This record gives sequence, structure tokens and C-alpha cells, in this order.
Amino acid sequence: MKIISDPLELKEHLKKSNSSVGFVPTMGALHEGHIALIKRARQENEIVVVSIFVNPTQFLAGEDLDKYPKKDDADKKICELSGVDVLFFPTAEDMYSNDEVKICAPNVRGYVLEGATRPGHFSGVLRVVMKLLNIVSPTRAYFGKKDAQQLNLIRLMVKQFFMDVEIVPVDIVRDSDGLALSSRNVYLSKAQREEALKIPKSLYAASKLISKNILDTVKIKEEMHAILSPLEIKYVEVLNRDFEVIEKVQIGNTVILVEVIVGKTRLLDNIWL
Amino acid sequence: MKIISDPLELKEHLKKSNSSVGFVPTMGALHEGHIALIKRARQENEIVVVSIFVNPTQFLAGEDLDKYPKKDDADKKICELSGVDVLFFPTAEDMYSNDEVKICAPNVRGYVLEGATRPGHFSGVLRVVMKLLNIVSPTRAYFGKKDAQQLNLIRLMVKQFFMDVEIVPVDIVRDSDGLALSSRNVYLSKAQREEALKIPKSLYAASKLISKNILDTVKIKEEMHAILSPLEIKYVEVLNRDFEVIEKVQIGNTVILVEVIVGKTRLLDNIWL
Repeated sequence: MKIISDPLELKEHLKKSNSSVGFVPTMGALHEGHIALIKRARQENEIVVVSIFVNPTQFLAGEDLDKYPKKDDADKKICELSGVDVLFFPTAEDMYSNDEVKICAPNVRGYVLEGATRPGHFSGVLRVVMKLLNIVSPTRAYFGKKDAQQLNLIRLMVKQFFMDVEIVPVDIVRDSDGLALSSRNVYLSKAQREEALKIPKSLYAASKLISKNILDTVKIKEEMHAILSPLEIKYVEVLNRDFEVIEKVQIGNTVILVEVIVGKTRLLDNIWL
Repeated sequence: MKIISDPLELKEHLKKSNSSVGFVPTMGALHEGHIALIKRARQENEIVVVSIFVNPTQFLAGEDLDKYPKKDDADKKICELSGVDVLFFPTAEDMYSNDEVKICAPNVRGYVLEGATRPGHFSGVLRVVMKLLNIVSPTRAYFGKKDAQQLNLIRLMVKQFFMDVEIVPVDIVRDSDGLALSSRNVYLSKAQREEALKIPKSLYAASKLISKNILDTVKIKEEMHAILSPLEIKYVEVLNRDFEVIEKVQIGNTVILVEVIVGKTRLLDNIWL
């Protein structure tokens, strides 16, 4: 496995080959969720590239940029064992300069849900993803469905900017207790983790209602709020796959999204129906 | 010559070939300045693509979006005669959808000079150019040096987003009376055009001072202001090629830029030393 930190060196290295390239961009502290992305990339492409970069521009002031979990040695091992061909490990200086051209998230879809609780976050995400996609020029790029809005916005950007890459969504991986895997789960105390289980529980309850043909989103959200209480709820939304608000669940075209604060930790989860 | 308006059709058409592609993006109403770009592209590449698109997002409210000169038939003829292989002729609906991801010009370099007199203009330029470059995926893209700040910002965007294209600057083409060619020159009355000649005259005076080793930018700007008077001057600036303000001309690393309003018409010009 090659480890490269210079973007131009990575571009050169990949240019020489005509093979299919699968790309998994991450912020490191790799867990089974990331491994699922890497495995999928490994199955579907001749070359697998993983990037590890804690991207400063997607953290707002006061957020956890400095505390974000770093497990470089474990990450390198995981990548090697997963058959990754190239690990891209840039610094902020490699990726950014001063007074740059920026990407700005869409006025509406970039500022609802996660974009409302973290205004400006998605502009930072889209900016680093655009750069990474241009550096790697992958055939396919893999993103977890846990960050559903992120996935949707990246797809939009790729479409609106006529980019040549297939964005592949990969299902959420859950811990044995049902909690969606996230690098930020390490911030939770034991008691907080117990409380956090209300999140998958609320989504499970929603899917049960739907299986009983109760499709009214007001009722579904009420039930979820009841289960999540007394956690601090940032949003519970029922949307179609274009991320528009709907009043009635449409099977095959619905996403239910939740964001909750447990202690100081922001936790996201969703189901796609 | 093929004429295509659908971006995806153009992408498909160009993907089939392995040849070098030279791209000249324009807003139509082609003049000798554009023809110089096309000729250069024709010399240096196997396939030449020209786009004609009056890009709405780079016009501010109150500007001349609706009046912008349109000469579609003449433009097609010029392209055919110049050996263009593909003419890309999209509509705004082909290029834009609602609530899009946007490009934002750099906070400083995007909002000085032209960016101060037309705030937001460069965000629109960079947005359409990013789209066009991704649709065409050219080997080389050609831009006139008359829009020097535009050229500089596009170069920055290509560099900062690791894009695979060579940006080729092409010298300003002047009319026989010295006025830099621009599609907007058609707005000028005969008298206004006479007045406009002060612009190249001021730049010529600047270059004479420099040839006499008078390199103090304060003196140079004073001289230029005197010549341009009483025209409405938006800016006269002496910068290095990184577009930073300098106090002393550096031969080989200087650009002198002028913007003046004649009647209601915005005219730009510059010299590179």
C-alpha cells in the first residue's frame, strides 16, 4: 500500500493507469462503517484509494475540530488489511491556500436539517469533496447513507457540475445494540450511549407504523418525538428522496432523518424506505 | 461542424475520441478577439470546441443581460469558417437548475477591481466556467487577456480544484484605432468611441513612462488619470501578476488595469509588462 500526502503526486500516480478507481474519502478514526465502504470499493474496482483528512472547513467555530478522534496507526493497518492500494494522507496546507475560490452549498437544500444546525458546514464538505474528486478522478466514490443529506448534496454537485464519477451510496452499519456507527460515538459515556439507543428505537418504531400502513408523517413524527424524549431533538423529518418535505410516506421514495444531541455529541441517523 | 445544445450529448460526443481538445468559451457576438482565440485553439489541438452562452449568473441586476448583443447566424458562420469542430449552444435551462451548488469567488481577489464594481459577477463567471470545463474536459482552454482579472481567477480555480486543463492566455486584439475589442463596443456612439480612445492612450502613456525608467506607480497612475479625464474612472491599478498591489513596476511581472464608464458602457483594458 502506497501512502501519499501530496495531491499532485497522487494525481500523477493515478494518471499512469487505465484501471477503474474506487475512492473512499474519510476523516479517519475508521470503524466498521468505513470498512463497509472500503470493501465495496475493493469488490467493484481495480484500484482502491482511501483518503484520510480531517477537513477544517467543514467544522464551524466552537465545534470539535481539535478533539476529532485521530487513530492514524490503526487506520493505516485497517487500510492495509482491507486491500487498499493507495492511502492519501494530506495536510491542510496540501489541500488549501489563502483567499481561495470556494464552493457554496445550495441556498435551500444546504441550509435545512444539518445545514440549519451547522450553517456553512456543507459548503466546507462540498469544497473538500470537489477537490478530492478532482485529485483522484475516481470511477466510483463511496459514501455512507448515515450522512444522508451530505450524500444528497454531493450527488447534486456531481450532477450540476457535470462531473465524471459514479456516487455509490452504502448502507448504514449499526453496532450490535443498534446505534449507527460514527467516529463521534467515542465521545459518549456509558449512560449517554444507553440514552442514544432511543434514536434507532424511534426509527424502528416509525418503520413499524409504516408496515401497518400508517403513512401520515405527522403521526410518525409524533411517535418518534415521544420515544426520543427527553433527548434534545434538533430535527425529525420525513422527506422524499429529493429531500423535499412530504405529508405522506411514499414507499420506495422516503427518507426519515433524525438528529439529536446527547450530552454535547451530535448524533445522526436515518432510514430509507 | 456539429452544433450541440445538450451538455450530456456533448460530453458523450467528446468522450469517444482520444484527441486533444481546445476549448474557447464565449458569450457570442464574436469579433476578431474571439477569432484570435479560435485560431490559437485550431493550431494547437486536434478538436476545437467553441461555446456560445450568455451566462445569466454573471450579470448583476440592472446590467445588460437582456440587451447583450446576439449575432447567432454570424457567429455560426465565423465558427464554420474558422474550422471549429463543435459549436456548443446551450440554453440557461440546459446549464442551470434550481437551488444549485454554487462557486463563490475568493473573498479578496474576487471583490477588488471588477469584483468591486460588479460584486458577485465573478462567482457567476467561475460557476459557468467550472461547468463548461467539466462538460468539455478540454486539454486546453483559451481566454483573452483583456479580462485579466477573470483570467487570473479562472487560473486560480483550476489550480485550487486540481483541474486537468491548461489555461492558455491570448493577447488582447485591438481595433485599428487602438480600442481593445469587446462585444460591448457596439453600445458606443461615434462620439463615445472617440472618448473611449483615451483608454488605450492612457496605457500607452504608462508604457512610455516605464520605458523611460519611471517605475513609481503613483506617478504612473497620476499620468493615466490626467489622460482619462473627464471620463468616469472606476479604477486604474498597477499590480503584479499575482494581482497584488505594487508600488514600483517590476518589468516582466506587472499588469496595469483600467476600467472606465463611457456613457453607460463599461470598458476594460490592460497592458502586461
